[in-house]
Amino acid sequence: MLPKATHSIKRSVGCKSASSTTSPSRGQQLPARFGRSSSRAALYQQFQTLLSASAPFPASFTASFPAPLPTLFISFSPSTRGAFPPLLHILWVSIHAGDYTDFYSSRQHATNVGIMFRGKENALMPNWLHLPVGYHGRASSVVVSGTPIRRPVGQMKPDNDKPPVFGACKRLDIELEMAFFVGPGNKHGEPIPVNRAHEHIFGMVLMNDWSARDIQKWEYVPLGPFLSKSFGTTISPWVVTMEALMPFLLPNPIQDPKPLPYLQDEEPYTFDINLFVAIKGEGMSMPTTICRSNFKHMYWTMKQQLAHHSINGCNLRPGDLLASGTISGPEPESFGSMLELSWNGTKEIPLGHGQSRKFLQDGDEIIITAMIQLPTLSLAGKFNGQKQQ
Amino acid sequence: MLPKATHSIKRSVGCKSASSTTSPSRGQQLPARFGRSSSRAALYQQFQTLLSASAPFPASFTASFPAPLPTLFISFSPSTRGAFPPLLHILWVSIHAGDYTDFYSSRQHATNVGIMFRGKENALMPNWLHLPVGYHGRASSVVVSGTPIRRPVGQMKPDNDKPPVFGACKRLDIELEMAFFVGPGNKHGEPIPVNRAHEHIFGMVLMNDWSARDIQKWEYVPLGPFLSKSFGTTISPWVVTMEALMPFLLPNPIQDPKPLPYLQDEEPYTFDINLFVAIKGEGMSMPTTICRSNFKHMYWTMKQQLAHHSINGCNLRPGDLLASGTISGPEPESFGSMLELSWNGTKEIPLGHGQSRKFLQDGDEIIITAMIQLPTLSLAGKFNGQKQQ
Repeated sequence: MLPKATHSIKRSVGCKSASSTTSPSRGQQLPARFGRSSSRAALYQQFQTLLSASAPFPASFTASFPAPLPTLFISFSPSTRGAFPPLLHILWVSIHAGDYTDFYSSRQHATNVGIMFRGKENALMPNWLHLPVGYHGRASSVVVSGTPIRRPVGQMKPDNDKPPVFGACKRLDIELEMAFFVGPGNKHGEPIPVNRAHEHIFGMVLMNDWSARDIQKWEYVPLGPFLSKSFGTTISPWVVTMEALMPFLLPNPIQDPKPLPYLQDEEPYTFDINLFVAIKGEGMSMPTTICRSNFKHMYWTMKQQLAHHSINGCNLRPGDLLASGTISGPEPESFGSMLELSWNGTKEIPLGHGQSRKFLQDGDEIIITAMIQLPTLSLAGKFNGQKQQ
Repeated sequence: MLPKATHSIKRSVGCKSASSTTSPSRGQQLPARFGRSSSRAALYQQFQTLLSASAPFPASFTASFPAPLPTLFISFSPSTRGAFPPLLHILWVSIHAGDYTDFYSSRQHATNVGIMFRGKENALMPNWLHLPVGYHGRASSVVVSGTPIRRPVGQMKPDNDKPPVFGACKRLDIELEMAFFVGPGNKHGEPIPVNRAHEHIFGMVLMNDWSARDIQKWEYVPLGPFLSKSFGTTISPWVVTMEALMPFLLPNPIQDPKPLPYLQDEEPYTFDINLFVAIKGEGMSMPTTICRSNFKHMYWTMKQQLAHHSINGCNLRPGDLLASGTISGPEPESFGSMLELSWNGTKEIPLGHGQSRKFLQDGDEIIITAMIQLPTLSLAGKFNGQKQQ
């Protein structure tokens, strides 16, 4: 059965590399308002020393987070040395995330799904504009790019007038997401205020939240998605630290109604990260891009997500993973799932080469790419979902 | 703010202790149909050796599960030696569970909640009788009895015609549950068939799934409970192994409609465990029992829950925690939450001493007790939620 994953990180063709000389420590460039804890500052210093031109490059390295790191191990890839600015990439080699939470923070995605299932008048749920809606996901099956993903079997109810049936998922989908690792996090009972949230956001990964739409439709009422998601969630092995992303900040979207005070944050924390999803079917020589989106389309920022998550005293631990939810923009080509791109399976998504899709076929390879551009910096992070060997 | 937890395990007054002579290894007594993996059999042998009268009793001990145990550490309490049958109690001293899943498997509870919020005609959702509905919970805030639980703050919408408000939860509730630890579990992509599920169910704990009903009501659509649960979930530090519970097996409830084949299981896996919830308010000299229930009221068995959880290939790891959901029986006094006992806050729950409750007050202590009885064996497991000092 199917889609599987491998991984590669490549500089985009023609990109300019930024040496440590041309790109000094992002940590040092941070506005004072992002005030760092001394322990985290020490961590950055450790990274910089390890990545400096004169230091011997270690094959692997476990970072000294201030809190215990039961699941997150970090190593550097020597191949990136000199190619990217310091602090830009950290290879995440752990098998397991801690807890995993998935948000639902793209307004366009929530609206699209709402229109499909509840009609245009009731597209957004009443709570959506007041809080970053999210749910707990399954951490054990968060896997790194390169891990095979099998088409799940399960219970579905394709015919409303007949009993449920058991079988292989027929509406296997992707969700274009990004996610961030928490570090260091908070103690149980001690919320993280939104204006301190940045200090606990370690870095970001690309994510594919594989989704079985037919299983989801039958199981999810009233307690949310469960087996329709827990068969696998793929992340890139690269974590891009927030320091590296600071040059790509954009103003936040206008939030109307204004959120409650614990979610109010005037600081920009929206990032201009171009995102692409491509499919390469078994009979195709090249992948075809089906989605062009951007992380800037998020309505709720990661700082707001983190502040909301901990406001009740819930403790977030180093290595916990918090995901964006499907990232869809306003243009149809920016929709981040096949559910939206095929409008609930009512139209084909053309792939060229005489092929098209509504949902995934066995053997499909999924490639998610991120592209960040500045006059002096351009790079691509890519991860693949390959056909099973 | 409030309820906090301490723990004690006591034999009930007048109970007869069962020595290792009168109660030989439950593992050896198991019907052949429960066939054990050799690795798990070796584990039981290790326990028995450690608990035998002649062996020196270790202060603590980490069990050699066949799979890595990143989060579950086990130690024996010398105080139980000779008081309970071998294999009966294992002290769970880990800080963290792996993944945590909460089911919703008491028909009476699901019906009660359904009647309150959707009316009698649509009480049970269409999927409820076809699969064990469940959702992923927050593992980081699963705490052992003795850990303070603070009344959470968060976003609520008490007035349908006004915007949401921020503040302390006003409808803080308990949920009487039991849960089991997985061990050893399955590999990603390899489901556990229902007839092998018992081999992966290590043992059981008592659980209080603290719930903020007003936060839950506003946040839970469409992705399920989130912050209304993640502020804390208390478990007993005692794990009772399944071998110890085998003498208390009962026939399973009749399931109509008959479940799909992957959930069909003829073997009894329903357990006769009496459960009690008591509250001790600040002004009370003794706790008052508000609920008398029994684990036998579950509609879906733990084997069915485990088989369903893994049918899509989701991997379950040693130390993962799977909970029953609120355990309510048919009699009003057996309802396992204050939401049900006060019928959504429409009536008082009398506590005597001039006190009553609809939901928890600051300083309330919660005591959950399990009682198992046979002519030769009677014991009580108890855990407390005490007022904060």
